[in-house]
Amino acid sequence: MPLPNRWLTSLLMRFNGVSILVDCGEGTQIPLRKYGYSPNPIDVMCITHFHADHISGLPGMLLAMKNAEKETPLTIIGPKGLTNIVRSLRVIAPALPFDVNCMEIEGSEETFSFPGFRLEAFKVNHNVLCYGYSMVVDRIGRFDVERAKALGLDIKFWNPLQKGNEIVTEDGRKITPDMVLGPPRKGLRVTYATDSRPTASIEEHARGADLFICEGMYGEPGMEQDAVEKKHMTFAEAAEIAVRACPDEMWLTHYSPSFVHPERFVDEARRIFPASVAAKDGRSIDLNFKGD
Amino acid sequence: MPLPNRWLTSLLMRFNGVSILVDCGEGTQIPLRKYGYSPNPIDVMCITHFHADHISGLPGMLLAMKNAEKETPLTIIGPKGLTNIVRSLRVIAPALPFDVNCMEIEGSEETFSFPGFRLEAFKVNHNVLCYGYSMVVDRIGRFDVERAKALGLDIKFWNPLQKGNEIVTEDGRKITPDMVLGPPRKGLRVTYATDSRPTASIEEHARGADLFICEGMYGEPGMEQDAVEKKHMTFAEAAEIAVRACPDEMWLTHYSPSFVHPERFVDEARRIFPASVAAKDGRSIDLNFKGD
Repeated sequence: MPLPNRWLTSLLMRFNGVSILVDCGEGTQIPLRKYGYSPNPIDVMCITHFHADHISGLPGMLLAMKNAEKETPLTIIGPKGLTNIVRSLRVIAPALPFDVNCMEIEGSEETFSFPGFRLEAFKVNHNVLCYGYSMVVDRIGRFDVERAKALGLDIKFWNPLQKGNEIVTEDGRKITPDMVLGPPRKGLRVTYATDSRPTASIEEHARGADLFICEGMYGEPGMEQDAVEKKHMTFAEAAEIAVRACPDEMWLTHYSPSFVHPERFVDEARRIFPASVAAKDGRSIDLNFKGD
Repeated sequence: MPLPNRWLTSLLMRFNGVSILVDCGEGTQIPLRKYGYSPNPIDVMCITHFHADHISGLPGMLLAMKNAEKETPLTIIGPKGLTNIVRSLRVIAPALPFDVNCMEIEGSEETFSFPGFRLEAFKVNHNVLCYGYSMVVDRIGRFDVERAKALGLDIKFWNPLQKGNEIVTEDGRKITPDMVLGPPRKGLRVTYATDSRPTASIEEHARGADLFICEGMYGEPGMEQDAVEKKHMTFAEAAEIAVRACPDEMWLTHYSPSFVHPERFVDEARRIFPASVAAKDGRSIDLNFKGD
């Protein structure tokens, strides 16, 4: 439920000029604008499930994109039924100057590849079909100058090989990137899971993530049964996932409307997983490749 | 467009325990809650037209009503096509514990009667079919004690007659209210018009209103042509309607997103119609019958 002092849960990721929005409940366009972002570069939207608090802001966001003169296509990823839901909601946003392509997730896991990154959708456990998402940026191995020199490669070939392209030398030799690159280095992984009970799929996807964003519907004591019945999680349950998956940090979000001061209960999560944060609206982080 | 510091235009009227909401753009449930009102008693909703900024908050509002344990039926009044639009938007709010009845306005004017008040819908002039609304509370004439006494009426009959009911005396005489009531007194009228160019229908409906709420999309100088092209009004155009219709006061609303400081330009309207107000979010007034 959107509250006067708390927007509905949504995540904006930006990478190489492309923005990816995960979930779009009522009003999401407002904090987007408030925090200084444009809807124009949102080329991918991921919808976890079709409860209104995760998708009711879609028509308004589409019109905000139009208003921001978006022309590049928008891909919307979501559970089966997405095409029909989007078509229905577009009754009030019918004419747009960009294409909207819906991609319905098949099965319990599916990966969607984009230039430079991929999105992994994984089924979670809510009272309707619901998916979490990981955004993954792979990083190739280090360029081995010694091997390049040993192969007698002109320096003009180094850059295309570093970018993962094959080259052919003047004397007709085909050189593949693996001949001059070390093993792949750790890239980036952001994993987002709401609304759900704890699942093995969340733990697997959050493993070693740079950032794990997880629902924590309840943080106050005595809400364990509510969490079970309403198919949500307590802070402790989210932290139990994190302590096994070992992300760099975990942000809790998607609090119950009646849960007014989540920050007062974050120690409950920190006792289990110290790098837990009770996230508030507008929280932001820059993630960079680690090491050289 | 909903802005970080300005909600979409919407009007809540409360009368005798019933709330009437006019327009429900994205996020409307949030200021409703912020200003301390419940969606539960909203039994009537009026939609001016189907542009997203006037209806995109509908699914969220319906779910907020459910959450507030609303059980009484909701009547939604709006232009032709309303039933289909509401059905489409309810794809994300399918199961509700109260009935939703859509009433599509026929022709250029239609009156909808409710206990104690009526809503008059009147066609305005926008780039899609659009209606303004007047809420009217009639007030019967003063009870004439002398006439009641002259008719030899027992005091127990006075109250039903005052309420507009016929009575039959013990000696079999039928007494109708007009026999003991003076002429109808001035009741209450609130007239709401957005989005539109100036029209005769707005002027007629705003005539003598206790409150006239009118769009003023543009207040800065030099926007006259934009107002014509986009089928909206300038402050001056709204004030020209008001000066002819003579409402007690006029509130301007529905400002262009680029029109950041409407209060700085309200003098433009006041030169024409002194009782002009550049309304801000949360503005509220109590209207009472005048005289005894």
